[in-house]
Amino acid sequence: MEYNVIFQPSGRRGKVAEGKTLLTASHELGVDIEAPCGAHKVCGKCKVKIETGFFEKFGIDSQMDHLSPLTEEEKKLLKEDEIANNYRLACAAEIKGDVLVFVPEESRKADQVVLDTGKERTFKLDPAVKSYYVEMPPATLEDHRDDLRRLQDALKEQFGLENLSIDYFVLRELPNILRDGDWKVTASVLYDREIIDVRPGFVQKWYGIGIDVGTTTVAAYLCDLSTGEMLVKDGMMNPQVRYGEDVLSRITYAMMHEDGREKLHQAIIEGINTLAQRMTEKVGLTPNDVLEITLVFNTAMHHCLLNLEPKYMGRAPFAPAISAPYDVKARDLGIKINKAANIHVLPVEAGFVGPDNVAVLIAEEPYKQDDEIRLIIDIGTNGEIDLGNRKKLLSTSCATGPALEGAQIKFGMRAAPGAIEKIKIDPETLECTYKVIGDDKWHGRGSKGNAKGICGSGIIDMVAEVFKAGIINKTGRFNTKLKTDRIRKDENGKPEYVLVFAEDSGIGKDITVTQGDIRAVQLAKAALYVGAKMLMRHLGVEKVDRVTLAGAFGSFIDKESSMVIGMFPDCDLEKVHAVGNAAGDGAQAALLDKNKRIEARDVAASVQFVETAVEPDFQERFAEAMAFPHAVDPFPSIQHILDRIPGYK
Amino acid sequence: MEYNVIFQPSGRRGKVAEGKTLLTASHELGVDIEAPCGAHKVCGKCKVKIETGFFEKFGIDSQMDHLSPLTEEEKKLLKEDEIANNYRLACAAEIKGDVLVFVPEESRKADQVVLDTGKERTFKLDPAVKSYYVEMPPATLEDHRDDLRRLQDALKEQFGLENLSIDYFVLRELPNILRDGDWKVTASVLYDREIIDVRPGFVQKWYGIGIDVGTTTVAAYLCDLSTGEMLVKDGMMNPQVRYGEDVLSRITYAMMHEDGREKLHQAIIEGINTLAQRMTEKVGLTPNDVLEITLVFNTAMHHCLLNLEPKYMGRAPFAPAISAPYDVKARDLGIKINKAANIHVLPVEAGFVGPDNVAVLIAEEPYKQDDEIRLIIDIGTNGEIDLGNRKKLLSTSCATGPALEGAQIKFGMRAAPGAIEKIKIDPETLECTYKVIGDDKWHGRGSKGNAKGICGSGIIDMVAEVFKAGIINKTGRFNTKLKTDRIRKDENGKPEYVLVFAEDSGIGKDITVTQGDIRAVQLAKAALYVGAKMLMRHLGVEKVDRVTLAGAFGSFIDKESSMVIGMFPDCDLEKVHAVGNAAGDGAQAALLDKNKRIEARDVAASVQFVETAVEPDFQERFAEAMAFPHAVDPFPSIQHILDRIPGYK
Repeated sequence: MEYNVIFQPSGRRGKVAEGKTLLTASHELGVDIEAPCGAHKVCGKCKVKIETGFFEKFGIDSQMDHLSPLTEEEKKLLKEDEIANNYRLACAAEIKGDVLVFVPEESRKADQVVLDTGKERTFKLDPAVKSYYVEMPPATLEDHRDDLRRLQDALKEQFGLENLSIDYFVLRELPNILRDGDWKVTASVLYDREIIDVRPGFVQKWYGIGIDVGTTTVAAYLCDLSTGEMLVKDGMMNPQVRYGEDVLSRITYAMMHEDGREKLHQAIIEGINTLAQRMTEKVGLTPNDVLEITLVFNTAMHHCLLNLEPKYMGRAPFAPAISAPYDVKARDLGIKINKAANIHVLPVEAGFVGPDNVAVLIAEEPYKQDDEIRLIIDIGTNGEIDLGNRKKLLSTSCATGPALEGAQIKFGMRAAPGAIEKIKIDPETLECTYKVIGDDKWHGRGSKGNAKGICGSGIIDMVAEVFKAGIINKTGRFNTKLKTDRIRKDENGKPEYVLVFAEDSGIGKDITVTQGDIRAVQLAKAALYVGAKMLMRHLGVEKVDRVTLAGAFGSFIDKESSMVIGMFPDCDLEKVHAVGNAAGDGAQAALLDKNKRIEARDVAASVQFVETAVEPDFQERFAEAMAFPHAVDPFPSIQHILDRIPGYK
Repeated sequence: MEYNVIFQPSGRRGKVAEGKTLLTASHELGVDIEAPCGAHKVCGKCKVKIETGFFEKFGIDSQMDHLSPLTEEEKKLLKEDEIANNYRLACAAEIKGDVLVFVPEESRKADQVVLDTGKERTFKLDPAVKSYYVEMPPATLEDHRDDLRRLQDALKEQFGLENLSIDYFVLRELPNILRDGDWKVTASVLYDREIIDVRPGFVQKWYGIGIDVGTTTVAAYLCDLSTGEMLVKDGMMNPQVRYGEDVLSRITYAMMHEDGREKLHQAIIEGINTLAQRMTEKVGLTPNDVLEITLVFNTAMHHCLLNLEPKYMGRAPFAPAISAPYDVKARDLGIKINKAANIHVLPVEAGFVGPDNVAVLIAEEPYKQDDEIRLIIDIGTNGEIDLGNRKKLLSTSCATGPALEGAQIKFGMRAAPGAIEKIKIDPETLECTYKVIGDDKWHGRGSKGNAKGICGSGIIDMVAEVFKAGIINKTGRFNTKLKTDRIRKDENGKPEYVLVFAEDSGIGKDITVTQGDIRAVQLAKAALYVGAKMLMRHLGVEKVDRVTLAGAFGSFIDKESSMVIGMFPDCDLEKVHAVGNAAGDGAQAALLDKNKRIEARDVAASVQFVETAVEPDFQERFAEAMAFPHAVDPFPSIQHILDRIPGYK
């Protein structure tokens, strides 16, 4: 006997055989209902509401007694008011007549995840590590299969997973876990190939961390792999900075000291261990709950973290030890999360363009862009630039230096509470107002903002604002003739501008922008500008259609300020977007959707690397790009702003 | 142009195109010449001798100038007298005319290996770990493939190996190794899948160890995996004996002590580390040169070594944690050989029948036996018995106790220099003569043999001889009425027989056989006898056609002595063979030929386990089997010996 079953709100309908469960019916009719326990009546996730009464528009008579009676499990897993309101578990209720079923939002299977870290990105939720709840018959004298075989058979029968291997450290505890769970366990499987965790009973959630290991800043994202939700975001200075501020000085350190390589490796591994501990603790977990980490970084950091000999990368022909994506056991790296956990390292492109740029690409997906020419700038101590679209994609790398991350800047600091993130200077009064991270108010003279320093976005604002106010000129030199107590000489007799006076600051002294700060930013922005222009020349384009500004600043940089200082070639301001840490987003994307790893491998192989620093006119172009916004290139999109600058011709 | 090429001694001949090397010609004509360096003119292994002059019987005129001139590499790799005697390297000499080539024995490729550890066994030489010498173009600005890709490409082009992964600890050092070797390296690959070692230059040899971890004795065999040669044999007491003499007491120890499992694991791992260190040192190697270990043991030792929870194996339904063959990194077990080395664990059969019996089976191959019914007894603290042939194979396990390995015997010791391995007692004079390991002479009263104790084979001889001389009777009791100073009372007033007087021994005291020794051997031999009989009943046979006695005694046990004490049912003595440590041979077979691992997996799945100790008449049958040779069963094959025993009716 067959009955009419209709699922709402999708409206899918069809005939289903008597005795089948609503969950089976949903599969047959193509409706996705969440059932993480595998229809074992354990998780209570597959709640549906039965609509009763004769529904004329559907032509069926739906009644509660058109289903098998309420089971014991349902009485336990459904709340009283749910039972009163005709809720059932889809895995328990069997069809005995026509039914109209409403699937509430929370019971619908999420197969998409939205990353909301500045730019809203939508990915498929399909992690490399998945958890499966299985029930097994206990071992008996008649059925004395070994424990592993019993688990493998259950995973095969209940989820179609075949030929699964098992990590040694999981195997060790398997006999106890199977019996502790009374032959009901949740197994986590990597790449549908290897069992890397088994826990007694039904365990609904499992976790991973995406990490962007920048030269200066490490950004980490703890994610719930069952929902794709990002639970904790954390960051720290890269502990390797004590061995060198930039990539080359660290490679040199590794080469010059017998245990240099090991020290660099240990420093960042300890950093990651600290982050894993801190982040999991914040949400009541332990590092043992983390089953995978995805890692992105530039190629030098890639080698230093993995403890690969980095010295040959630092000199021609710059061959890395490995470019391919790589999976390694956390324990082999000394990373203290789950012992059997996987560390997935995204692929390297070429030369100094590393997995971090690959991560930016899989987050931004310019290879899916049809006609527009897109320029993507990932700002870091090592800057990466991509240009192109579906047809062709070029990339280059440039030595930006850490200025835009707050280093080499007198009052620079990383994006953390207390950091100035936005700055405005009135060109009339030359007074400064600013916003501090963790405080919604704008502060100015006489208003205690407790600022401690300036983070990346603030640094760009600060330079753009002193330029727009005429405090510095096109070449970056201070105009010391202006009448304001904010411009004065520093202890070395060099001019500086006071952003925050000591009495308003959180550090008991004036926070200033110095001539040295301006120079550091000029060098950084010129490197990015020239890199972009060189790529444009290689692609044969005069103008870019869209600019994406990425970087691990925490707070977003101001696109107008960035263009005013000339960080990238002219572009319609409407088409310029700051997206936050796209590399970190890429690390999360690879964590949450294993298909992004294939995309990463493919784009790493197809993107064309251009070595821009060896171009014959590089020095000359670099010198021109030092000026604000540029010595010769026109900036029609911001000409109206430039025209208003006092003294700017 | 093509020329006649003839290879001797195989006689293979054919036309070969001008310019091809003799090595290529040998491949075309199906002649196997050793060329481990992959024809790179590095190893000098492919030496061949050119026979010159007109050879009427072959119809060709072979001359030295029918080959390209001697290369620089040949001048370096061939000795002066070899060059004078027309030797060439087959990989260097190119064909320019008819040639008759003699391939000397040492240049012929060994694809078979003969294990001569008692019984001569022939296996294919096809190890799971193989080494490949490759040459790569160096990295340049035009070819900046990463190091791993470069190596993978070379292994693919030169040996057809595809999709190779690389162990993390090998990857770490890869950049230095490739450059140290000037882009010429030897890579070792596991299962044609994973690169587990890379060394600069051409490395001809690589190594593995086969280990039989007995409850009492550990036997290890260091093998050259390039030739199959067994280089060092070593052994030790299982260091776990301090936690219990037999399997059940060790499982109990693991259960009763919080860190019991860990202690048992550590003890045997340290033992293996000691053996690996000692054995490699003996031949000028280091443990780092060992790339694989194969392990066999009974199921309890399997769990204890791998640190798997053993407690559920010790009670019904006796389910092991894992039965399948298992590969695990040496480092994960704490085994200190090459860090990336593989540990291959042979499969478990069922219940207490472990990988050691699987090893015996792949060494003895009874499943290839056509009609004869074969009985295989593997004597150890835990005895294993197999019965059958190609059609059907049964196996069982019995608790023999450690007596036959020298434990529980007053002067028992393991088979090592100083151990008495053979004993004769004159039934007339009741005088004893004996042979000591490491000494070819027989010793008797007044001849200083420096014996320190008695090993397994000596224990069996000793019991058989005192029985044959009438010193003990059928029930094992001493006949104290005999006139000899060798029979006397021990410190507890129990009778004993002096094998060696203090003045002749190496320990300054008498070496004796006691009433307790006789009892211990009776219990052991009865367990084996009953096990065999129960299997015969299950198979429905009255008699066995062939008996194989295996065991890790070091020295071989005497088949007549074994039958006289009734260790197994009657069989034509001509068809009884002692084969030494067949389990150890099986461990080596699996090390040297990876196909034996597939055979092992298949036989583990097909052999039928019989639980003999639960048979209802077990106790009664056991009591009958305590007598020498047996209370009721006839022994026609040794009746003539029994008839000569004084007092034996």
